[in-house]
Amino acid sequence: MDYQLSYDFGLNLLHFGYMKKLTVLTGDRPTGKLHLGHYVGSIQNRLKLQDEAAANGGQAFYMIADVQAFTDNADNPDKVRANVLEIAMDNLAMGIDPSKTIMFIQSKVPEIAELTIFFLNLVTLARLKRNPTVKSEMKQKDFEEDVPAGFLMYPVSQAADILVFKANMIPVGDDQLPMIEQTNEIVDKFNRFYGNDVFQHVTHKVGDTARLIGIDGNAKMSKSLGNGIYLSDDEETIRAKVKQMYTDPNHIHLQDPGQVEGNVVFTYLDVFDTDKEAVADLKKQYAAGGLGDVAIKDRLATILIEKFADFRTRRAALEKDPEAVMKILERGTDRAREVAHETMLEVRRAMKIDY
Amino acid sequence: MDYQLSYDFGLNLLHFGYMKKLTVLTGDRPTGKLHLGHYVGSIQNRLKLQDEAAANGGQAFYMIADVQAFTDNADNPDKVRANVLEIAMDNLAMGIDPSKTIMFIQSKVPEIAELTIFFLNLVTLARLKRNPTVKSEMKQKDFEEDVPAGFLMYPVSQAADILVFKANMIPVGDDQLPMIEQTNEIVDKFNRFYGNDVFQHVTHKVGDTARLIGIDGNAKMSKSLGNGIYLSDDEETIRAKVKQMYTDPNHIHLQDPGQVEGNVVFTYLDVFDTDKEAVADLKKQYAAGGLGDVAIKDRLATILIEKFADFRTRRAALEKDPEAVMKILERGTDRAREVAHETMLEVRRAMKIDY
Repeated sequence: MDYQLSYDFGLNLLHFGYMKKLTVLTGDRPTGKLHLGHYVGSIQNRLKLQDEAAANGGQAFYMIADVQAFTDNADNPDKVRANVLEIAMDNLAMGIDPSKTIMFIQSKVPEIAELTIFFLNLVTLARLKRNPTVKSEMKQKDFEEDVPAGFLMYPVSQAADILVFKANMIPVGDDQLPMIEQTNEIVDKFNRFYGNDVFQHVTHKVGDTARLIGIDGNAKMSKSLGNGIYLSDDEETIRAKVKQMYTDPNHIHLQDPGQVEGNVVFTYLDVFDTDKEAVADLKKQYAAGGLGDVAIKDRLATILIEKFADFRTRRAALEKDPEAVMKILERGTDRAREVAHETMLEVRRAMKIDY
Repeated sequence: MDYQLSYDFGLNLLHFGYMKKLTVLTGDRPTGKLHLGHYVGSIQNRLKLQDEAAANGGQAFYMIADVQAFTDNADNPDKVRANVLEIAMDNLAMGIDPSKTIMFIQSKVPEIAELTIFFLNLVTLARLKRNPTVKSEMKQKDFEEDVPAGFLMYPVSQAADILVFKANMIPVGDDQLPMIEQTNEIVDKFNRFYGNDVFQHVTHKVGDTARLIGIDGNAKMSKSLGNGIYLSDDEETIRAKVKQMYTDPNHIHLQDPGQVEGNVVFTYLDVFDTDKEAVADLKKQYAAGGLGDVAIKDRLATILIEKFADFRTRRAALEKDPEAVMKILERGTDRAREVAHETMLEVRRAMKIDY
């Protein structure tokens, strides 16, 4: 799960910020390192949100969703294990600040499991099967009725992730809207059965889901497609991957006119090159002929290398002290559990199981 | 759930008892008081088992399954709440001994929810829908695809109930065999994915499922059918219910020959009257004519009143001190959590999420 894809935060505060404290939940499944697609789609917004929540007197939560990772990696505990630390280091090096964001590991907050079990009684099988996100993921993974039960019901688990912290603002991509709908349906059903005091509807904000295409130009950037540039890639790797980028297969001689549309290098320059005028000039030159792929690729590689240089330095420092990273997660988990524990006391009271 | 329906314990120890310590789990859903059907089907065996486990150096657990009760009573928290104490008092008055049996409330052991969530990844939707017990219950309740997800997956939750305490012996009725099969399949899958150290196959023993028919003679005794005699019914109520019992509708005059087969009074006398010869004589008389319903009903009512007289005295004492009963459940829950916590440490180690 990647709760936060693209999120126009500034706009949102106009409608939301002055009304109540912002409690934001974002998270990653620990199944791989962060790549440029994550950076464009969610990390930038995650960083903005942590500051806005702090400024608003609210709270940001960042969850490493290992329990959710098991819903389709149950047979691969090593992968989940290894990536918990990787994803934590990526986020810390990116600027997630433990003094502003409570960073925690999902499996260490058993209250989420408890709440999930209670929520499962409020959702029908038919409803779970109708969830468009789950439906398309099931198709993608070739699951039919042999879908693991845990995978089918992960939207209910997400509702518990959100509500156990009473998060009221979830940044999402448009493909994640069904998650918010499911969460709010659960809120309604819970309130109908047990009274209106515990949970309120969750607000979301869909940004323009400017997903970054992969270096092959064929699809979105994704671990499984092997078409990504990772935030932690070193200079050499970045240069090598940029060199592989899909450009214009018909642009063989320097003098030939080249295609800008669908040219991955220009797509990336549009995103990462801050000198928009220079990019416009390069596009003109390329289209007219006389500008080679090597030149634009060199420019892009240099920009990417520079942009994430500080990140790499910070990450290298974190890599030297994994215990310190785990310590941060432990402290965050303790704080997350305090909040979750309070919510569960309220849930138990509402459900009359506060014996 | 009623884990323990009918269980021939003596036989079982020959195969099992000398080999390992007996860890027994039984339980009730807190959705009503215990009736004579429970007594015949499970309480007697539950009492035997608590002693055998103690003698064998093992441990008996008794669970008040409130979380499971919510799977089809999510909209009725008052019912669940009220019956927790009732069912605890019934069992205590019946002879469940807190010094031998760990009595606990399911919802107070969140480790069960955690384990359920992990187990849900090891079971497919198709497998859940194939479960014969769930299938027939879904039919009975007229659920189809609108079945609550929590209800559909309750066998997975039962596997967690059993395995979190490493119970190795589950007394069941033959309609509950699918629960044991599902549990052992989960054990196999867990071991395949995470190694063989944590869980072992669960043993069960199916007794002759001598379910007691209801006083209307039409079906098994059941709360929902309103055809039960409750262990806590007072003398007057017992007499009144016995008077309503279905006998032989054609046996109108005392002199008429009466039908013994299907005559609920004789069915009950066969179970509860210890003087088998006298019962045989009565049957002969009744069949020949000259014995009235009033006489046999009086005899049965007196036997039942006497049989549960001590129970009623003990229950009346418990009713005067509900705090003491809750105290017993609290202490039991603490002990249950200790065991569950140890198991979850092992689970986390096996799943490599023991950060």
